[in-house]
Amino acid sequence: MRVDERGTLAFLEAPEQVSLREYDVPAPEPGAVLTEVVRANVCGSELHIWSGDHPLIRDGVLGHEALCRVVALGDGVETDYAGTPIEVGDYVVPAYFATCGHCAQCGAGRFRLCENAYKYWSRPPGREPHFHGTFGTHYYIHPDQFFYRVPDGIDEGVAAAANCALAQVLCGFDVVGVSWEDTIVVQGAGGLGLNAVAVAKEAGADVVVIDGVAGRLDLAADFGADHLIDLTELDTIDERAEEVQSLTDGLGADVAVEVTGVPDAFTEGIELLRDGGRYLEMGNIIPGRETTFEPGVMTRKSITVESLMRYDPWYLGKAIEFLARRAGAYPFEEVLDAEFPLEDVETALEWSRDRSVARATLVP
Amino acid sequence: MRVDERGTLAFLEAPEQVSLREYDVPAPEPGAVLTEVVRANVCGSELHIWSGDHPLIRDGVLGHEALCRVVALGDGVETDYAGTPIEVGDYVVPAYFATCGHCAQCGAGRFRLCENAYKYWSRPPGREPHFHGTFGTHYYIHPDQFFYRVPDGIDEGVAAAANCALAQVLCGFDVVGVSWEDTIVVQGAGGLGLNAVAVAKEAGADVVVIDGVAGRLDLAADFGADHLIDLTELDTIDERAEEVQSLTDGLGADVAVEVTGVPDAFTEGIELLRDGGRYLEMGNIIPGRETTFEPGVMTRKSITVESLMRYDPWYLGKAIEFLARRAGAYPFEEVLDAEFPLEDVETALEWSRDRSVARATLVP
Amino acid sequence: MRVDERGTLAFLEAPEQVSLREYDVPAPEPGAVLTEVVRANVCGSELHIWSGDHPLIRDGVLGHEALCRVVALGDGVETDYAGTPIEVGDYVVPAYFATCGHCAQCGAGRFRLCENAYKYWSRPPGREPHFHGTFGTHYYIHPDQFFYRVPDGIDEGVAAAANCALAQVLCGFDVVGVSWEDTIVVQGAGGLGLNAVAVAKEAGADVVVIDGVAGRLDLAADFGADHLIDLTELDTIDERAEEVQSLTDGLGADVAVEVTGVPDAFTEGIELLRDGGRYLEMGNIIPGRETTFEPGVMTRKSITVESLMRYDPWYLGKAIEFLARRAGAYPFEEVLDAEFPLEDVETALEWSRDRSVARATLVP
Amino acid sequence: MRVDERGTLAFLEAPEQVSLREYDVPAPEPGAVLTEVVRANVCGSELHIWSGDHPLIRDGVLGHEALCRVVALGDGVETDYAGTPIEVGDYVVPAYFATCGHCAQCGAGRFRLCENAYKYWSRPPGREPHFHGTFGTHYYIHPDQFFYRVPDGIDEGVAAAANCALAQVLCGFDVVGVSWEDTIVVQGAGGLGLNAVAVAKEAGADVVVIDGVAGRLDLAADFGADHLIDLTELDTIDERAEEVQSLTDGLGADVAVEVTGVPDAFTEGIELLRDGGRYLEMGNIIPGRETTFEPGVMTRKSITVESLMRYDPWYLGKAIEFLARRAGAYPFEEVLDAEFPLEDVETALEWSRDRSVARATLVP
Repeated sequence: MRVDERGTLAFLEAPEQVSLREYDVPAPEPGAVLTEVVRANVCGSELHIWSGDHPLIRDGVLGHEALCRVVALGDGVETDYAGTPIEVGDYVVPAYFATCGHCAQCGAGRFRLCENAYKYWSRPPGREPHFHGTFGTHYYIHPDQFFYRVPDGIDEGVAAAANCALAQVLCGFDVVGVSWEDTIVVQGAGGLGLNAVAVAKEAGADVVVIDGVAGRLDLAADFGADHLIDLTELDTIDERAEEVQSLTDGLGADVAVEVTGVPDAFTEGIELLRDGGRYLEMGNIIPGRETTFEPGVMTRKSITVESLMRYDPWYLGKAIEFLARRAGAYPFEEVLDAEFPLEDVETALEWSRDRSVARATLVP
Repeated sequence: MRVDERGTLAFLEAPEQVSLREYDVPAPEPGAVLTEVVRANVCGSELHIWSGDHPLIRDGVLGHEALCRVVALGDGVETDYAGTPIEVGDYVVPAYFATCGHCAQCGAGRFRLCENAYKYWSRPPGREPHFHGTFGTHYYIHPDQFFYRVPDGIDEGVAAAANCALAQVLCGFDVVGVSWEDTIVVQGAGGLGLNAVAVAKEAGADVVVIDGVAGRLDLAADFGADHLIDLTELDTIDERAEEVQSLTDGLGADVAVEVTGVPDAFTEGIELLRDGGRYLEMGNIIPGRETTFEPGVMTRKSITVESLMRYDPWYLGKAIEFLARRAGAYPFEEVLDAEFPLEDVETALEWSRDRSVARATLVP
Repeated sequence: MRVDERGTLAFLEAPEQVSLREYDVPAPEPGAVLTEVVRANVCGSELHIWSGDHPLIRDGVLGHEALCRVVALGDGVETDYAGTPIEVGDYVVPAYFATCGHCAQCGAGRFRLCENAYKYWSRPPGREPHFHGTFGTHYYIHPDQFFYRVPDGIDEGVAAAANCALAQVLCGFDVVGVSWEDTIVVQGAGGLGLNAVAVAKEAGADVVVIDGVAGRLDLAADFGADHLIDLTELDTIDERAEEVQSLTDGLGADVAVEVTGVPDAFTEGIELLRDGGRYLEMGNIIPGRETTFEPGVMTRKSITVESLMRYDPWYLGKAIEFLARRAGAYPFEEVLDAEFPLEDVETALEWSRDRSVARATLVP
Repeated sequence: MRVDERGTLAFLEAPEQVSLREYDVPAPEPGAVLTEVVRANVCGSELHIWSGDHPLIRDGVLGHEALCRVVALGDGVETDYAGTPIEVGDYVVPAYFATCGHCAQCGAGRFRLCENAYKYWSRPPGREPHFHGTFGTHYYIHPDQFFYRVPDGIDEGVAAAANCALAQVLCGFDVVGVSWEDTIVVQGAGGLGLNAVAVAKEAGADVVVIDGVAGRLDLAADFGADHLIDLTELDTIDERAEEVQSLTDGLGADVAVEVTGVPDAFTEGIELLRDGGRYLEMGNIIPGRETTFEPGVMTRKSITVESLMRYDPWYLGKAIEFLARRAGAYPFEEVLDAEFPLEDVETALEWSRDRSVARATLVP
């Protein structure tokens, strides 16, 4: 395989200001992997960063979700993180965060809480090894970044999405627990939401999806949602709570998942649950957005709330395994509705923000 | 044992209006137990009911926490709920709620969520068997109410408190998980809070107590709290968060327990926790009390929130077992600082509300 | 509904000696339910009892698995154990054991371990209320026996089987944990085994079934087993272990379930698992049957073994719910291959023992 | 700190044939740490290896449990695995096994099952970096070996023992679950057993210890065991089961822990448990040692068996934390009753095998 001498990346200089830069392609240090980017998706977090809303990151190389092809292996790299042999030319997905192994959280076995998860994110492109983000021709996988080989037969666009949405959903569902006995409400039919529908159906649950955009509700139905609640039709919490009760013998949902990013959705979610219900909060991450909340509602119902960002890094391996076994049963490929060449990265970001496209993909 | 023909009970006719009424003492139906009240405590929920703040109850016979002595056993009652033989004259503690066994929650094994838990609470005294509450000379234990025999050697006042506070703390701690590795913050040093200190110390945890009343903080120290935070000294959330961080290598607490009943304490509790911390919400139960909450703080920290009212009824048996083994290690008897005869029930309630006494006991 | 004045039951006087007896049909006491037997299955435990192999029971009225129709409701019975209204004429399934609520196990919340579970089993037919077993025209459901209403649309034969096999499988799978990530080996394709295949498929697992009878393997395939291992073809443990490894990238199975009743199957099951695998032991219950076992194999592999008899009684409600939702996806009705009138109960038992029939049903 | 140019190590050439060899002290590669051995204990596994009984290892450099002092840090090593800054001269304890991070088990988050845990163990001394075991003047900590800094104030001998026994006990107890409600039987009062007593007492459990050596029982009592069973007095399983029942209201133990290494202890342990009890199997690891076992006893009692070798590597950090907080409450230092210089390593091994000493320590 030919190793290009120069590569291009997308640099966020300031909110909504992106420029393409060219750098020498680095050789991988021991334990690292140099890759070419095959496809990189524009996900919600990327839009937060680009628009200046991310809690930690204001500038730096853009992109974190991608399918990559191995260009060069650092010394000592013979397998992926599951022991599968890896060679130049193989497809891989890297975790979008580091797992340092040497902080108070890692050192206590709580890897998804690694204190240094974003150590490579805020780096400027001038700093070696330059290719810190997936919006570029190349991507550099550091020695403390989990990555997994993608077996043949998984659609390229689908594989690219495993990194972020599917891995987090699988981890979140293991934390909150979902089974065939549950009626689960998915609040929001974006990327996380559609993955949540797939994983919930796989577990045998009865799935209710709430959203206000017709196209997103249609997609949710295609993913197997059993019941749809259109926010434009049932436009009060009371109406939606009544609808959920009518679907659950008057009890309320066993589980609800918040993937809208809207603070009021948290308050609503608690209302939709039955006594003893479980709530999975993953969407609200942007700082400074508040809601009015009555803790007593939660207490009187004895609700469990699980919240998480990221995932234990081995869930990326599980996500690939899930896709290898079951991707065919769900229209994952429909989620990605627009491809852009790298030079149109700003258009991809703008159209994604405006929701002109549901999920854009960069194909360098 | 002599069975009195007539007994007296305290009837809440309307908020803050209590009268004593006299009724024929009933014979227990099959499966039921008639008892004399030995001691009945005035706990926080009772004050909520008396003052008209309880979510469900406006009037009826008062009292739910008590130590009782068996007067008569209904047909078929040969043991308590753990199989310990029971006889007339034995001391017992009854769960303050019913476990109906025949509702959607019980029928799925979620007994602490029984839909009919309060089926006997709102009853007027004229309805048989009259003695629906523990503020009286007698108390009627229904066939679907768990009760446990109290072995010799447990202080009477201490045993009376097992029902409500200790059983709930034991259940809550099992749900949230507490071990010797944890630093736990107890928000509020009232009845639930002091029991939480004892159970946390028993599990080997490092315990931080937050309260604003000197006498309550002193009691917390007597129960073994390792660190005290006085709200009158550290009077901002930031100062208290800083103090907790200084006690935990800058990380924040592993666990926090809310037993203040103040909605803002929920928001503060989330701030005091480390990434991945666990929160136990038990104090906020009164309807209509709101706080401003930023769900993103919780999500970015990946917090787990467990909330509960009541307890699985067998935790009452565990509470008695806990006291039998370990009561001597903690000054439980100091918690009860005032005794009143039944006829002074209104004084007991008023003084409790005014915090002139910490925990009042009625001794009929 | 007409209430017959006399009913008939099958009495085991001594191993393999059954006689039919006629008794007055009892009126139900408060909390009890009198039923007519619609269908009663002959399951493995019944054969153990009949042949004198059961650890606890030597004689008494036969039968424990059944679908029943309500004839009369005792005072106070208005719903089943999940709160569903119940009326004369409704179909119900009763748990085959009591849940006394008043023993050391029940009183600690461990209901499936109730010390008095079999309190009604060993009773002679002359003792009231006579109809202690399901091999009869009538069956008496005691106040401390969980029962659930069977909704319309579930095949009668299928519903009858929920009580024993399906409820136990659901409980066991919750204890051991089974998900879409697992390859699970089911040792034995009898009643428990086929139910295990269905529940494992529902959870998304990859299922391997081991048996030596062609017809049973065929049924397992009809239930959705992904891989079959025929004991007559792979007739050594080593060969079977090799086959399981070949299906699992050389690792071994994630989960194995023992439902053969053969002690050596336990030793083999440990061999088939991967390091860290989980084992569910449900089949070996007959006393006195030993195997040679090397604990070190288990330790070096760090295996978890869960074993259980019976189930938490609310799993019977879950079983009915499972059938209501998903029975159509599995050929449950094929499991029951022979119907007998009550007077041919001995033939039904003999043919079942000889495996001339797979699962016999008595239709009184 | 002076770095010696040459160091000495103990090489097992064949079972029971040990020679001391001298090698150049290596410089640490990036991520590695070179240490001096402060104290190295002779633990049971070491005796298995030395005598040729270990399942995997026949020869190589001896020793795996030690307290070490940092001599030189490889590039990039600035902290231990919990993020605590580390410098030359600091005391550290290394996990005795590797955690490769790149095998099917690590890649699924099951780190204590790492397939390459013993990758450095069987190495001959001639292979660089030579110092593969702790029986030597130096020890080389590889980049994929967890290690934790030992804070001041922990006794040196005590710290050395954290690695093996205490870390495994803490991990095992988390897996099986031990609380103040439990009566726990510890089968065997050796190194693992005494640590088990300490951790069980810390959790508030009631502890029964079984052993046949008076000195070991005395030590168990010093560690806080509540009840002792002397195998020379109660010399049948029935007698011991009866004794355990008499201590538990006739029920049997809630938890039992096997740390004897005797296969029959497994069978006995199941007998000692109550219905629904939990069993922790850690002692039986040597291949080829069998027992006669009746699986039905386990099934009828619905026992859970957890077995494990090693521990998730962060339990080593927990062990150090445990010692820092609580070592003073237990006579850990009494466990180590004999010190030997490195040149007497064979004597230390022989006396340990003959039980002339309980736990020997090499002080190079």
